[in-house]
Amino acid sequence: MRTSVEEALAVAVAQTDWPESLEDAVRYSLLAGGKRLRPLLVLLASEMFGGRMEDAMPAACAIEMIHTYSLIHDDLPSMDNDNYRRGRLTNHRIYGDAMAILAGDCLLTRAFELLGGTPGPPDRMIRMVQILAAAAGGAGMVGGQVLDLEAERGPLRGPDFAEERDSSSQTCGESAENTEINGTKALKPPNFFGKQANCSDSNLVDQLIRIHTMKTGALISGALDLGATSAGAEPQDCDRLKQYGYRIGLAFQIADDLLDITGDQARLGKTPGRDVDLGKLTYPAFWGIDESRQRAKTLISEACGLLDIYGERAVWLKELANFIVERDH
Amino acid sequence: MRTSVEEALAVAVAQTDWPESLEDAVRYSLLAGGKRLRPLLVLLASEMFGGRMEDAMPAACAIEMIHTYSLIHDDLPSMDNDNYRRGRLTNHRIYGDAMAILAGDCLLTRAFELLGGTPGPPDRMIRMVQILAAAAGGAGMVGGQVLDLEAERGPLRGPDFAEERDSSSQTCGESAENTEINGTKALKPPNFFGKQANCSDSNLVDQLIRIHTMKTGALISGALDLGATSAGAEPQDCDRLKQYGYRIGLAFQIADDLLDITGDQARLGKTPGRDVDLGKLTYPAFWGIDESRQRAKTLISEACGLLDIYGERAVWLKELANFIVERDH
Repeated sequence: MRTSVEEALAVAVAQTDWPESLEDAVRYSLLAGGKRLRPLLVLLASEMFGGRMEDAMPAACAIEMIHTYSLIHDDLPSMDNDNYRRGRLTNHRIYGDAMAILAGDCLLTRAFELLGGTPGPPDRMIRMVQILAAAAGGAGMVGGQVLDLEAERGPLRGPDFAEERDSSSQTCGESAENTEINGTKALKPPNFFGKQANCSDSNLVDQLIRIHTMKTGALISGALDLGATSAGAEPQDCDRLKQYGYRIGLAFQIADDLLDITGDQARLGKTPGRDVDLGKLTYPAFWGIDESRQRAKTLISEACGLLDIYGERAVWLKELANFIVERDH
Repeated sequence: MRTSVEEALAVAVAQTDWPESLEDAVRYSLLAGGKRLRPLLVLLASEMFGGRMEDAMPAACAIEMIHTYSLIHDDLPSMDNDNYRRGRLTNHRIYGDAMAILAGDCLLTRAFELLGGTPGPPDRMIRMVQILAAAAGGAGMVGGQVLDLEAERGPLRGPDFAEERDSSSQTCGESAENTEINGTKALKPPNFFGKQANCSDSNLVDQLIRIHTMKTGALISGALDLGATSAGAEPQDCDRLKQYGYRIGLAFQIADDLLDITGDQARLGKTPGRDVDLGKLTYPAFWGIDESRQRAKTLISEACGLLDIYGERAVWLKELANFIVERDH
């Protein structure tokens, strides 16, 4: 399955009518390996509802292209200013900022072109175009990136990590107004953990959850929705998979934060501790390491519970969910 | 028609589920006026084939969103580094580079979401998604932008403008290898003008035509294709309109270059002479002012000739073509 994804991705960007330099820049980032989590979710969701892999593959590639373009743009100097990604120099460090912006734009556009060429009933394809756009756009991934950026650059910072590192205690001190970050509407995030402690840290955690639900959760649940839709699944099944997706997405982010503290550079392919250095809001900074780990496990268990009604058919998605919290890179 | 476009654009980005700051940044650029040439082309092409305006409007808005996102990204410091656009500060000058990148990404994604919601038969919508993606992507607008960037930054420059300003003479001096710009494949551009003089300037002009055919021509002919397709036109009619589109697109670019030399800042909304200052390749630099004007007129006349078979139905598109070379802003 993994090999099929790699092959399909390579074919999807072997465009003889693109300028060679653009094709190079696009291939550099898209074909750089990575976990291919999102395509895998598309294919597993499709398989669960009896879909054929070839019908789901355009969506699998499209969502990986969206993910890759977002990494290229996020790494730019005016955004996160990262030099390394997946153990290699970032796109703009090789091709320059202008080309990196254009390579991202090209991938984003190509994702929709590819999706529009999906075999199957046209009304299903149209639905998939809208799922992808909703997951990737201003109410999803791009919106989450905006909130993330504002949280990092605004007056709000997480509690000092060094103090909180080995404790799950929460400090109260910020005012309630802080739920509004730089004038951004403080929409209520999904309530995954029930009522938080009545102090502003809980508001900050709510904000953090909202950011990640949009920034990474939307695309992960979108992947599952795309896969199920490509197989002709019923709307309530698509919704169930999306709920599973939001939970594993959040668990994935918590696991990422934990790896940033406890991982080593060789396995991560990036500098550990970087998030802390940047003063980024992270879950361990609020909850401490042990509670973060526990909450990630709870999310995974809830996610898997949602799939119980599918019996044996859900075994791979459950497996994958558990891998997310147990991985070391 | 113009008012309907403005209203539809405003509605299309009134997204209560986007972060407020993102919505602000998007609206700042999308609702800043402008000629709305591309939406107009969509609507006129649709009307020509008996389409209803409401069926063509999503495509009209989508293509203007693509155009606007490309302007936002092009204006960035790492690209053209422009401070003014349509007489106002550019997006990144107001909202910062990071937000400008994200506002562009958001518009690009929203364009496809909107197009996927077009009323009408699903197979037609799917066709429209592919038309838009092909026109906007690596083989179209984004690819043209890459070539443009490389031409500006590479060793190749146009002949010195001051020398060529009032002359249509061509100087030979560059070697033939220069048709390959920075290792970019030198695909043959469409031959709008027959055989050029046998010297490298003709190769440079060919490159320039190729750049503009991709960078602006693809989106303009895509607009016409979208409009005709939304009305259910036959493929040969769509092709005919695309040919018309490539010609008016090129004439539009030549007219732009001429305005950069002869226009005044108030009407242009940007600094005249800027292209020359930047050492950009321009048509007047190759052909001189008079011949450039003549060639633009010839293109318009060819474009209009293509529409003769439609009789009275083509009157507005012909009118628009003539406006392109006669406008003063």
